[in-house]
Amino acid sequence: MIAIGIDIGGTSIKGAAVYDDGRMLDVFALPVVKGEPGEETVRKLIDVVENYINEKGIGKEIVGIGMGIPGLLDIEKGIVTYSPNLKWDNLPIADLFKARLPYPVRIANDANVAAFGEAKFGAGKGVPYVIMLTLGTGVGGGIVLDGKLYEGNEGKGAEMGHIVIELDGRQCGCGRKGCLEAYASATAIINDTKKAMEEHPESLMHKVAEELGKIDGRVAFKAARQGDQVALQVVDQYIYFLCEGIMNYCNIFRPNVVILSGGIANEGDYLFDKINDFLKLHQYGFPKSPVVKVVPAKLGYDSGKIGAASLLF
Amino acid sequence: MIAIGIDIGGTSIKGAAVYDDGRMLDVFALPVVKGEPGEETVRKLIDVVENYINEKGIGKEIVGIGMGIPGLLDIEKGIVTYSPNLKWDNLPIADLFKARLPYPVRIANDANVAAFGEAKFGAGKGVPYVIMLTLGTGVGGGIVLDGKLYEGNEGKGAEMGHIVIELDGRQCGCGRKGCLEAYASATAIINDTKKAMEEHPESLMHKVAEELGKIDGRVAFKAARQGDQVALQVVDQYIYFLCEGIMNYCNIFRPNVVILSGGIANEGDYLFDKINDFLKLHQYGFPKSPVVKVVPAKLGYDSGKIGAASLLF
Repeated sequence: MIAIGIDIGGTSIKGAAVYDDGRMLDVFALPVVKGEPGEETVRKLIDVVENYINEKGIGKEIVGIGMGIPGLLDIEKGIVTYSPNLKWDNLPIADLFKARLPYPVRIANDANVAAFGEAKFGAGKGVPYVIMLTLGTGVGGGIVLDGKLYEGNEGKGAEMGHIVIELDGRQCGCGRKGCLEAYASATAIINDTKKAMEEHPESLMHKVAEELGKIDGRVAFKAARQGDQVALQVVDQYIYFLCEGIMNYCNIFRPNVVILSGGIANEGDYLFDKINDFLKLHQYGFPKSPVVKVVPAKLGYDSGKIGAASLLF
Repeated sequence: MIAIGIDIGGTSIKGAAVYDDGRMLDVFALPVVKGEPGEETVRKLIDVVENYINEKGIGKEIVGIGMGIPGLLDIEKGIVTYSPNLKWDNLPIADLFKARLPYPVRIANDANVAAFGEAKFGAGKGVPYVIMLTLGTGVGGGIVLDGKLYEGNEGKGAEMGHIVIELDGRQCGCGRKGCLEAYASATAIINDTKKAMEEHPESLMHKVAEELGKIDGRVAFKAARQGDQVALQVVDQYIYFLCEGIMNYCNIFRPNVVILSGGIANEGDYLFDKINDFLKLHQYGFPKSPVVKVVPAKLGYDSGKIGAASLLF
């Protein structure tokens, strides 16, 4: 059984044929031309997909086409309600595909789809309850329960970064105050890093930032590893914020695994040891509760394509 | 199809035969004798259940026995790991039943079971995604997705009151600080009421408390309805706390319905109008998101029996 999995991003679209055991054939790609109408981009994408299927000679094995799309979707109707990144507005992408290709089409939020890929074939493989948190510009992610992607009413659930962990706290982009995203995103640790650097001209973080050519999510981690106490405070505070969010998800879902992805999740054992120590010390959120493994994502950028294809399996 | 649904409480056990359309036959009851060993209480309970089934002549229609139990359970093994209320310790209740009655047995947490009953046959009937919050001594509740009770690993998920909404906030009984339970339980509003009364000897709440003979969760609501400004502040602050918790659950699950049960949920339209106004003003937690109805529970004390039976349907 094969499905085409397509990962639609703000600057490029990538896809591949994926077998129902998670194996992937080679990747096709299409740039997203700025300012181009969505219908035109999708027309080109359908051309690419059609050629790819013909070239590979897999037309008869394909059970459908899945897509991960950033923005607000109506997953039941297969419509992109609005995507700020792509400037797609009310685009009936599923119908456009179905008018030209004889396959079922499913769409879902890009972060949810990536979580689904990781849960089925990556760091969450083999266990029933998986939560993924993506620590990037914002905090996204997804919920996979009993091998099924949980999306909520109209597919508008699983806004993992938008739980308030601090009443009347930091302003969040969503309009609320105190969301996890405002504390545990890469953006948040960058802001905390900048603030600590301003207050501490002696911190090693200045040298590290200079070497990196910018202040990004790595600065505090790099300096902390080298023993800088100010950086260590930034990191430990970040771990605390993140773990309070993770423990909330532990208590709600009592998952087997929490997968972390996104730039921050590249900090390796240094990060994950700190997280797992913190969680152990706090009994994984609730007394006498089972251990929740917190692990890095495994599939990298392929999670989107594999997860999108998995919508059809 | 009939299942026996049993609601085990700290002072009494109640049960009934429940049809798979939610209809219930009459209720049997058994007091819990303080200090009695769990095995003995269960032996008596099995006698009562056996007699009830024989009297009703329903033995052949029964598909199983479901039980809602307070405390820490191993739902897969059918064992009460520890129940502080009942002082049951490592009690293999499912095996005890199966040794004497020829039916499958399922156990689940009492709050989860009540949520399941409400979702299937009460205030959540007919919609796929239901969250229940029970506002009592603590904050409990449950999660019902696509008609199935979600319980998490070892059945230890759905600890609805134990999400932190305030970093380093009010001390919670679970050990963490800032849990929703410490802000939105009946206990919490009672504490807030007492504090406001101390600070405001002129408040109408003193008279209301005198009339009621105690300070409970109703005092602030009663006085606020009569125009007392201090009471209104207590109520509105409580609504704010509760709604921040509800909006977290909206963003995670984007459910169709959030059901509120427990003493506080008896405050009627006054409470629910305030809650729904607040949620509407805050876009149900996230911009452009579908409305989440917040409604009172419908089944009262029957939710536990009906939900317990529903574990078998």
